[in-house]
Amino acid sequence: MIDRTMKEKSLNQKTVAIWFTGLSGSGKTTLAENIEKVLFSMGYLTQILDGDTLRLGLNQNLGFSEQDREENIRRVAEISKLFINSGIICINSFISPTHKIQQLARDIIDREHFIEIFLSASLEICEKRDVKGLYKEARNGNIKNFTGIDSLYEIPINPDLEINTGVLSVEESVVKCLEVIIHRISK
Amino acid sequence: MIDRTMKEKSLNQKTVAIWFTGLSGSGKTTLAENIEKVLFSMGYLTQILDGDTLRLGLNQNLGFSEQDREENIRRVAEISKLFINSGIICINSFISPTHKIQQLARDIIDREHFIEIFLSASLEICEKRDVKGLYKEARNGNIKNFTGIDSLYEIPINPDLEINTGVLSVEESVVKCLEVIIHRISK
Repeated sequence: MIDRTMKEKSLNQKTVAIWFTGLSGSGKTTLAENIEKVLFSMGYLTQILDGDTLRLGLNQNLGFSEQDREENIRRVAEISKLFINSGIICINSFISPTHKIQQLARDIIDREHFIEIFLSASLEICEKRDVKGLYKEARNGNIKNFTGIDSLYEIPINPDLEINTGVLSVEESVVKCLEVIIHRISK
Repeated sequence: MIDRTMKEKSLNQKTVAIWFTGLSGSGKTTLAENIEKVLFSMGYLTQILDGDTLRLGLNQNLGFSEQDREENIRRVAEISKLFINSGIICINSFISPTHKIQQLARDIIDREHFIEIFLSASLEICEKRDVKGLYKEARNGNIKNFTGIDSLYEIPINPDLEINTGVLSVEESVVKCLEVIIHRISK
């Protein structure tokens, strides 16, 4: 059997799941894409798992009820485990709104391979940005159960890193992430 | 954005999903593991997706009804797509009993990246082997909807390769697979 250790050796990297949590508009996808770019330039192989993308494919049969959000995260965490078993660094961008959901991801993936990064831009800033126009829709009542508006976001209890993406630039945020990530993935 | 082409280039391989279909006991998992071993020794990065393994994790909330079998394959095909997007060769071992299910996998993954290999060992031989003791359980009525016993297996219409694993050895079968695979994955 070709196991994770052999694949990590072949790829010259150690694998982790980097898990971005934060409100819609806090910069999860932007940071994921920028970190993948930098890591790729350094020779690391990564895979981005993103809420929007997965809801078009694997999770297209899930809604936004509490139960469906949990199932969404459960599936993503299980997929992350598959990528980890292949030696690949997994970069996950999911709101992950509740402590229960944050813990679920951590439990499935396991502590050793899990890096939780909380993007703490405030609701005011995320709503002001409103890149996808979703906050406006939620305020108008066209989207129900929208995190921050009529659905809870519970601040992570003990993340590996918190970045105030309401204040720091993308470049500054990338550097902060790399400080935490690099020693976990280099052989 | 770091896309599939860039990752394939970095890994020095082209990606496909190799999809083994056939009865329980026809040798899907054995062949998958042996092919992974050979491809790894040649420098290729692969990931095995296997019915038994996935039903312990991602698909633990699915049973064996027709609907659940379809959802099982739908999820696996969507995950294969994620691996393909990472430039990784995906080796899938799933009974995939009906034409509808075989077509579903092909449609989701897309023709260009799909290699269907039908392991055509007969029911008699698979049942005689009964490595996991499942046929005995099914005959005793302890397992319902067991493919080949009280649930249908529809022979694939136009597989890329058929291997009679009731006659050929593992080594002979591996060579036959490689003949079909190698020119699809080499740069």
